[in-house]
Amino acid sequence: MTTLAILNCDVLKVENKTASVVTGQDILIEKDKIEKIIPHASAMIDQNTSKIDGHGLLAMPGLINTHAHTPMVYFRGLVEDVTVEEWFNDYIWPMESNLTEEDVYWGMLLGMAEMIESGVTTVADHYFYMDQEAEAVKESGMRANLAWAVFGHQGEKGLDRTVEFIRKWNDSANGRIITWLGPHAPYTTTPDFLKLVVVKAKELGVGIHIHVSETRDQVQNSLRDYDLTPVKLLQQVGVLDHPTLLVHCSFATDEDIEILTHYPVGVAQAPKTYMKAGVGLAPVLKFLKKGIPVGLASDGAASNNTLDILEQLRLMVLSQRVSLTDPLILPVGELLDMAFRSSARVSGFGDSIGELKENKLADIALIRQDGLQNFPCFNPAVNLVYSVQPSQFDNVICNGKVLMQNHQLKTINKDKVKQEISKRLERMTQRENGKSIAFYPS
Amino acid sequence: MTTLAILNCDVLKVENKTASVVTGQDILIEKDKIEKIIPHASAMIDQNTSKIDGHGLLAMPGLINTHAHTPMVYFRGLVEDVTVEEWFNDYIWPMESNLTEEDVYWGMLLGMAEMIESGVTTVADHYFYMDQEAEAVKESGMRANLAWAVFGHQGEKGLDRTVEFIRKWNDSANGRIITWLGPHAPYTTTPDFLKLVVVKAKELGVGIHIHVSETRDQVQNSLRDYDLTPVKLLQQVGVLDHPTLLVHCSFATDEDIEILTHYPVGVAQAPKTYMKAGVGLAPVLKFLKKGIPVGLASDGAASNNTLDILEQLRLMVLSQRVSLTDPLILPVGELLDMAFRSSARVSGFGDSIGELKENKLADIALIRQDGLQNFPCFNPAVNLVYSVQPSQFDNVICNGKVLMQNHQLKTINKDKVKQEISKRLERMTQRENGKSIAFYPS
Repeated sequence: MTTLAILNCDVLKVENKTASVVTGQDILIEKDKIEKIIPHASAMIDQNTSKIDGHGLLAMPGLINTHAHTPMVYFRGLVEDVTVEEWFNDYIWPMESNLTEEDVYWGMLLGMAEMIESGVTTVADHYFYMDQEAEAVKESGMRANLAWAVFGHQGEKGLDRTVEFIRKWNDSANGRIITWLGPHAPYTTTPDFLKLVVVKAKELGVGIHIHVSETRDQVQNSLRDYDLTPVKLLQQVGVLDHPTLLVHCSFATDEDIEILTHYPVGVAQAPKTYMKAGVGLAPVLKFLKKGIPVGLASDGAASNNTLDILEQLRLMVLSQRVSLTDPLILPVGELLDMAFRSSARVSGFGDSIGELKENKLADIALIRQDGLQNFPCFNPAVNLVYSVQPSQFDNVICNGKVLMQNHQLKTINKDKVKQEISKRLERMTQRENGKSIAFYPS
Repeated sequence: MTTLAILNCDVLKVENKTASVVTGQDILIEKDKIEKIIPHASAMIDQNTSKIDGHGLLAMPGLINTHAHTPMVYFRGLVEDVTVEEWFNDYIWPMESNLTEEDVYWGMLLGMAEMIESGVTTVADHYFYMDQEAEAVKESGMRANLAWAVFGHQGEKGLDRTVEFIRKWNDSANGRIITWLGPHAPYTTTPDFLKLVVVKAKELGVGIHIHVSETRDQVQNSLRDYDLTPVKLLQQVGVLDHPTLLVHCSFATDEDIEILTHYPVGVAQAPKTYMKAGVGLAPVLKFLKKGIPVGLASDGAASNNTLDILEQLRLMVLSQRVSLTDPLILPVGELLDMAFRSSARVSGFGDSIGELKENKLADIALIRQDGLQNFPCFNPAVNLVYSVQPSQFDNVICNGKVLMQNHQLKTINKDKVKQEISKRLERMTQRENGKSIAFYPS
């Protein structure tokens, strides 16, 4: 039985890296799945079916944020125009020491509210106090792959706490929540610690979400200490044998890339963060050429300022083209394939999401096409990449449930969340000497 | 007598390249000028003063678009993922041959509606059939520096038509419209033609708006043909002796930059266009170091897709940082100085706009600060650069007159404009063999 129907919308299709739009379609949803996409389906539904008027709206798969530290919205715009080292050591890590479990809960809700408003239905998050994140995800209706960040100095005890979290939450909230292990990075752990992570991953049957080769220094230090690039080190300790979400990989070597083709990995990319921080861009075109899935990511709003995945999509093509001085790379269809199907694979949800098609999970974002910046509209797919603003998202559905309708959030009380955040800001932004979750670089 | 008052807003100040925000201010406007900015001014106004509730809004100078071909909104998103040569020769220039005077009028209105909605109050435009542009600017209430584009092959007769336009429209619409000469570029004219332009500029007492050194090829060809870089050629023929708006200057040499420091010039920059087209970025930091004013620009929406100057502001810092791998360049205050005071100088309106201060012209944009992507808000100036969306502009005032209130346009009938544009699209997008306004490269 059809539980929800979106009537008379335009539908974005991305097939063989080519984008097209089919107009005048009805999308029928049964519980958590897309049942059918056909024109004139109103005869097939009855008064028990919830209906959304899709006229003038473009339906696309919900956007996927393949790497975030969502509760870092607390620090949005607070630390700007400093070096990466100052940013971590003098500001972010000392401030993150102030975080309580409840802070994480409210920060997660704030970030998810922003993401839902921007058409994002799935996030792969990497942070602390993940039980609270999971509670917040359960409430919000979003889909999430949650990894509890753990540093080497926290030892087996620290790792075990994250394992407990996985046992409690993996495949919960009607399948909306999956959980992976979250060792922070090769440079903040040790090979022995990572080997322990691999043992746990095998035991639990879960993947691993880890930062890798974000800066040239990280690669140099790894070569100095282990005679291996960070990617090779991950290979050697066995991490890559498991589904792995590699974050950044900005300084992956050609040999690293060749290695990665043999493993079940995906790479998360947050172009705005890299640009703003003046670090190099990852060899995205080389990853794509070798068939390594690349996903779009916001990273934390403390560096990226927003959790806007459309902005990352636009910056992905703009940054790669200016860096490679080539106007023909990343055409619209290829970009949208990255945003949807490829990001779905990177996020750990495989091919269950990222496409509007029968039997896929019903994660759908509907965007208004009537803004002046979209007019005239020769090709809605082009406008999606180069013109639209995230404020134009009107309806967002995840797992068959409406999270936003007519731009009104349905599952999160925005005012209450803003109040709770405001109460916490003064305490959260204190910086005490010597109080820090880690030191960068190691 | 105060004609318009904005009550209880926050005001953005940019002084000595440092941004700050003063809360709880009233902005009093008398006719076309800012009279006073003080708190609690309500006792000073009476029932004859129009009032705008500024609570929750950040007031900033209206944004300035220092180089556009506004009516090119007709071709937005139509030609993507092709080389620069194909873009010009196979698509844009043949299609522009279809333009009629009336097309330009409606295209100008559409583009201005988009700009006003995005907080832009001033545009330096470079196009054809400029009488119609000027009529549209007069109606819209925007401020504009209009230049009628002319190619060398049009000869003195072509140039004379643009001179007539200047005689008719310079310093009109209560000073909102100024007019400059618009020779297209050194590569589409000849040194003799440019010398003729200089004669006319001296006669008329106006400036010159010209494309320069956009690609490496243009510089190479100029060296081949004249043994001079395009910038040196402009110096030699006398163009630089007049106020000159140099568009692009992406491949200006160090010697070119040294030359430019001696002349009354400004440089317009459209980072999104350069990134998308995969051409190199201009040496913006070198311009700034030498005190050459740099302004933000959208160029045409056919290449840039939007006329959104906030997007250019963000892309300016992101593109320069990734290109120079330096996170410390273009801090927020310096960027905002570029967006306002420096862009004002580049646009040809000098220091009469670009600052919220007594006796400046009342060009003011008010932006909502309540979006989730702006929350928490530690520093509204930072959010302006890295978080806000142009859809958050709520009120726009130009020359003391309200052009948009509560996001509703007051001077342009959007629906009527969209209808008129729609009627023209089929004819406008025909491409006839051999029909082209020019050929690129020359």
